[in-house]
Amino acid sequence: MKFFTRRDKFFDLFEALADRIEEGGKLFAEIVNHYEHSEQKLSKLKEIEHEADTITHDIYYNLHNTFITPLDREDIYSLASKMDTILDLIESAAVRMYLYKIRRPTKEIAELARILNESITQIRKIVYSVRNKQDAKMILDGCVVINTLENEADQVLRTAMMRLFENEKDPIELIKLKEIIQTTETATDVCEDVSNVIEGIILKH
Amino acid sequence: MKFFTRRDKFFDLFEALADRIEEGGKLFAEIVNHYEHSEQKLSKLKEIEHEADTITHDIYYNLHNTFITPLDREDIYSLASKMDTILDLIESAAVRMYLYKIRRPTKEIAELARILNESITQIRKIVYSVRNKQDAKMILDGCVVINTLENEADQVLRTAMMRLFENEKDPIELIKLKEIIQTTETATDVCEDVSNVIEGIILKH
Amino acid sequence: MKFFTRRDKFFDLFEALADRIEEGGKLFAEIVNHYEHSEQKLSKLKEIEHEADTITHDIYYNLHNTFITPLDREDIYSLASKMDTILDLIESAAVRMYLYKIRRPTKEIAELARILNESITQIRKIVYSVRNKQDAKMILDGCVVINTLENEADQVLRTAMMRLFENEKDPIELIKLKEIIQTTETATDVCEDVSNVIEGIILKH
Repeated sequence: MKFFTRRDKFFDLFEALADRIEEGGKLFAEIVNHYEHSEQKLSKLKEIEHEADTITHDIYYNLHNTFITPLDREDIYSLASKMDTILDLIESAAVRMYLYKIRRPTKEIAELARILNESITQIRKIVYSVRNKQDAKMILDGCVVINTLENEADQVLRTAMMRLFENEKDPIELIKLKEIIQTTETATDVCEDVSNVIEGIILKH
Repeated sequence: MKFFTRRDKFFDLFEALADRIEEGGKLFAEIVNHYEHSEQKLSKLKEIEHEADTITHDIYYNLHNTFITPLDREDIYSLASKMDTILDLIESAAVRMYLYKIRRPTKEIAELARILNESITQIRKIVYSVRNKQDAKMILDGCVVINTLENEADQVLRTAMMRLFENEKDPIELIKLKEIIQTTETATDVCEDVSNVIEGIILKH
Repeated sequence: MKFFTRRDKFFDLFEALADRIEEGGKLFAEIVNHYEHSEQKLSKLKEIEHEADTITHDIYYNLHNTFITPLDREDIYSLASKMDTILDLIESAAVRMYLYKIRRPTKEIAELARILNESITQIRKIVYSVRNKQDAKMILDGCVVINTLENEADQVLRTAMMRLFENEKDPIELIKLKEIIQTTETATDVCEDVSNVIEGIILKH
């Protein structure tokens, strides 16, 4: 009986984490697309990131206190850690916009935010399917989509960097934007890492 | 008999590594707080970093040559690797001050060095307690303190970045200080990683 | 019978990956040393990097679908992931030279490319020896050479940074070169990571 409770507990926590990521991703896109007067959205994003930290810590705690886990221990650890990192990066990119007082996000940041949110939608869908592992094909298709989105984000990053170095003549502005663009793109890389962990879980079962 | 020797060997090495980190952290704070004429301290710090590399390699060697280990193999590997990284980052931050010929460390670097040393004190205390795992509560309390210190360091980093971008008008100076500040703060992040590994070890036992 | 096929498959894939890394490393050195008119070489390098991604994914796929593996699962995963990262970094450094339209690579980039290729030669040699694990001494000697080369690369990086900050007065050029130099040096760090994984495999057997 306890085993089943525990088993469900892990999936409950992963789903709660996926929900926070989706909420955070949407808020990030709103901040990027409606940049003025976003202080309240930023506070809300920090709150979501903090909730995700608590959930992640809860997953680790259960991992160390459960003898038989529903997934391989290292997969549970990787999945929690990488899902948490997505939200860390989103919050970090948003906070830097404010700390650095950037005038407005570039169009490539908006483009990356869009790709990131598409990727997060897939992440949430496949995380919610891991509990039953029934629709393996749907999960593996989701992983392919996430992989394609990561390649797309990489192309946007490269174009953004080329344009930035061509057009931004103020080196300090360049440093600010470069860091924010790279942080946002790294979030899509970590979505692919999450997708790789889930692909491995599915292939093993 | 050999098992016991081996068992003790691991803890001896981890404690030796913790000692080097503490020594390196103190030297780093001295360099930051008394920046002039620190060439000798920097040489000493490089030496300590090199000793830590040797100890870490020794832990890996023993790990690969021991059949029954006193802690899970992946915990031994993570602990050694992350403890070694703390000293790598400390040495890297100190070396960059010299390579980049910075005039003097900012007050935020001094503040981060202070937080880092408080965190290292806790790291050393909990590493020394892992051998007997008797005072679990003390160890878990230490982990909470390290986590709080990491949050504090993150706040200092954010304030430091905001001030740097507001006040430093020379972009080349800004690049130098930004890298040194971020490297120092990353050392406190890795202290938290070490604390997470140890928390996991304690919860499992 | 199937076990043997599978067993060979892993080593075939690792050797194919080592071949791609060697090819990519050589191309990178050619681009650095004969920088003009390298567009075709860059396209070829992107192709090689893409092939390496496919091989890496093939290794993961086989890992998840094989019950008994010829090496520890986590070693197979680390080895594939880190070998793939070497080529990612090489391609990333080369692409940045073009995206950033740098006039010509500095002599330290050429020096790092030379060290990197020496390290890759050792990587390829030891990867090809893992299949039979017969000449353990030769493999461990190769690991020592890779470690020495990484220390050499670190020294070149430090000199390069000092010179860059002394001589490059255009902050935007400095940012470009700094990133390319650091990315190239990180590739030698990852060669050392690969060597550490292989050293672990050999010591365990």
